[in-house]
Amino acid sequence: MATAGKVIKCKAAVAWAPNKPLVMEDIEVAPPQAHELRIKIVATGVCHTDLYHLFESMHKDGFPAVLGHEGAGIVESVGPGVSEFQPGDKVIPLFISQCRECRFCKSPKTNQCEQGWAADRYDVMALPDSRFTCKGKKILQFMGTSTFSEYTVVNQMAVAKIDPAAPLDKVCLLGCGICTGFGAAVNTAKVEPGSTCAVFGLGAVGLAAVMGCKFAGAKRIIAVDINPDKFEKAKVFGATDFVNPKDHSEPVSKVLFEMTNGGVDYSLECVGNVEVMRSALESCIKGWGVSVLVGWTDLHDFAARPIQLIAGRTWKGSLFGGFKSKDGVPDMVKAYLDKKVKLDEFITHNMPLEKVNDAIALMKRGACIRSVLSVSPQ
Amino acid sequence: MATAGKVIKCKAAVAWAPNKPLVMEDIEVAPPQAHELRIKIVATGVCHTDLYHLFESMHKDGFPAVLGHEGAGIVESVGPGVSEFQPGDKVIPLFISQCRECRFCKSPKTNQCEQGWAADRYDVMALPDSRFTCKGKKILQFMGTSTFSEYTVVNQMAVAKIDPAAPLDKVCLLGCGICTGFGAAVNTAKVEPGSTCAVFGLGAVGLAAVMGCKFAGAKRIIAVDINPDKFEKAKVFGATDFVNPKDHSEPVSKVLFEMTNGGVDYSLECVGNVEVMRSALESCIKGWGVSVLVGWTDLHDFAARPIQLIAGRTWKGSLFGGFKSKDGVPDMVKAYLDKKVKLDEFITHNMPLEKVNDAIALMKRGACIRSVLSVSPQ
Repeated sequence: MATAGKVIKCKAAVAWAPNKPLVMEDIEVAPPQAHELRIKIVATGVCHTDLYHLFESMHKDGFPAVLGHEGAGIVESVGPGVSEFQPGDKVIPLFISQCRECRFCKSPKTNQCEQGWAADRYDVMALPDSRFTCKGKKILQFMGTSTFSEYTVVNQMAVAKIDPAAPLDKVCLLGCGICTGFGAAVNTAKVEPGSTCAVFGLGAVGLAAVMGCKFAGAKRIIAVDINPDKFEKAKVFGATDFVNPKDHSEPVSKVLFEMTNGGVDYSLECVGNVEVMRSALESCIKGWGVSVLVGWTDLHDFAARPIQLIAGRTWKGSLFGGFKSKDGVPDMVKAYLDKKVKLDEFITHNMPLEKVNDAIALMKRGACIRSVLSVSPQ
Repeated sequence: MATAGKVIKCKAAVAWAPNKPLVMEDIEVAPPQAHELRIKIVATGVCHTDLYHLFESMHKDGFPAVLGHEGAGIVESVGPGVSEFQPGDKVIPLFISQCRECRFCKSPKTNQCEQGWAADRYDVMALPDSRFTCKGKKILQFMGTSTFSEYTVVNQMAVAKIDPAAPLDKVCLLGCGICTGFGAAVNTAKVEPGSTCAVFGLGAVGLAAVMGCKFAGAKRIIAVDINPDKFEKAKVFGATDFVNPKDHSEPVSKVLFEMTNGGVDYSLECVGNVEVMRSALESCIKGWGVSVLVGWTDLHDFAARPIQLIAGRTWKGSLFGGFKSKDGVPDMVKAYLDKKVKLDEFITHNMPLEKVNDAIALMKRGACIRSVLSVSPQ
């Protein structure tokens, strides 16, 4: 490529400060260094974690940054030591790495690679060591990816090569939300056939969790949300029952207890609210109920009464749905191409990157499931 | 027996009110009703849960009661419909039942029988429906057992028949503490060979958890207690390392993180303190660390940061070590007779039932591991 080895000037949406609209800027993207790829981002979803960083996170040192972590694109050039990828490959950048060498990658029990940017920095979810500059300033890289930019640079251990037939404006959603929810049900909760599940929160992650429960063979999937508009959509993904906590005077855990004769086998918290985390645990049946934290927050502790666990419940958590990222994402792309998982049905809005603030506003008021932004022409 | 079908007058230590010494009284024990056994208690341990009910529980309606739930004895007589037991059988009364009929008993995942007294009354751990009276008053039955009495009456689904060769003044400890700690490691945490474990709190339950970790093949077992006197004893059961949190200025989770290059594979909280529960979770390695609540409290919520679970840790709890009670206790008695598990080494004091307040005082100041009270002559 003509651009290989050179700084690329391109458009990106820059978050200059917390609580401010993103600003479309011309930024410079340096060439990839050893083991890195420079990727032309074709499409990106907008995920609640982008909004969390912008509006909620207490870590105000995570700016200026390019947000976005749910993208798909095409390799533009590769740095020294990259043999697994070449220019033109369709790829999904990954916010958790899979180095294949560390003790975590070698264990079948976890997807928590020890080598990536996220290994010990869950708090400030922006990487100081980025290849971005704008107006002479270093711009941080969010979650190691930064997909709200026409180009980004990512280490090869955090990039998945995907089927060339994959439509990037759909499979971009596998970069975060859909794998996160689906995998939380299938990989982390390990939902069993014939079981009863409850999914709290029907955003894209929650709907993907519903889809995961269905995929795993759950018999009954109770979708819980305070926005009844979400219920029709949840049916599309396999929900069988709906509970709006606002329709009941008693706690939702009590409502579910009664509906299910003692509680659900699996519950998935897809909101990121510690009170909902408690409700989700308390909604599980004693003896074998498993509750999984999927939604993200670090603003408060989650809590419960000790007897909730002593009576036999298990509390787990899931990051990226427990998928080992480089292995799992291509598999999920294939599952989509084989029509085993849905993606199109999550997409309620399409718009260009320039409209990113509109997409953020839609999500903020719960008026979308997923907006997909077109970033570069393919 | 000459006493069959008649009310028995016998000695019992009665807890008339919270925070008061127990009082030796003459009580009346009614004959067993349908599906019940009347048991002559030969020996009983004193467990911290007895002290919890007496001194800490907020449920002041659980009095007057006969405490004690870690006993062993001999069947005196049986009520109608009992075919599994006969007078003279050596037995251990169980604070959780195993009816073998309910959905919980039929599931291999849990020991939470739905039929017993404990099914839905974790709070008030004393049973109004008892066979005890004293001075014309009904006396409550603690945890369905009440072993601080020469005789007690228990439903057959909460009694384990044990090997006639078993010494009752040793195997009584299998009625609670030893099964609880041992099983929490073996059944609930499912400690794997070669793993690294930490046990918080070195009372009888914690020492039994150490023994369970060792039995399961753990390579390294770190015993944690603020009383350094407990460390020599922990070695007897298999501990390899010792940490006294008071010896360190940094949190114990950080000390364990450094000792183990990232945290332990399994941690067991055997104190019943919600701050220790948090430390035990935080001491686990991300990715696959499993922390188990074993100690009992319902005074406070336990809590942690969501990322602790999202990073791949699992929080579980264990009641009676996850043992299905009627199946598990005879197996543990056999394991003791076969010298596969230790019991004698837990016993630091022996005294008659009349000295129960001395045994309580010893436990209160951490000066014993287990006191065994002789109750009736065999």
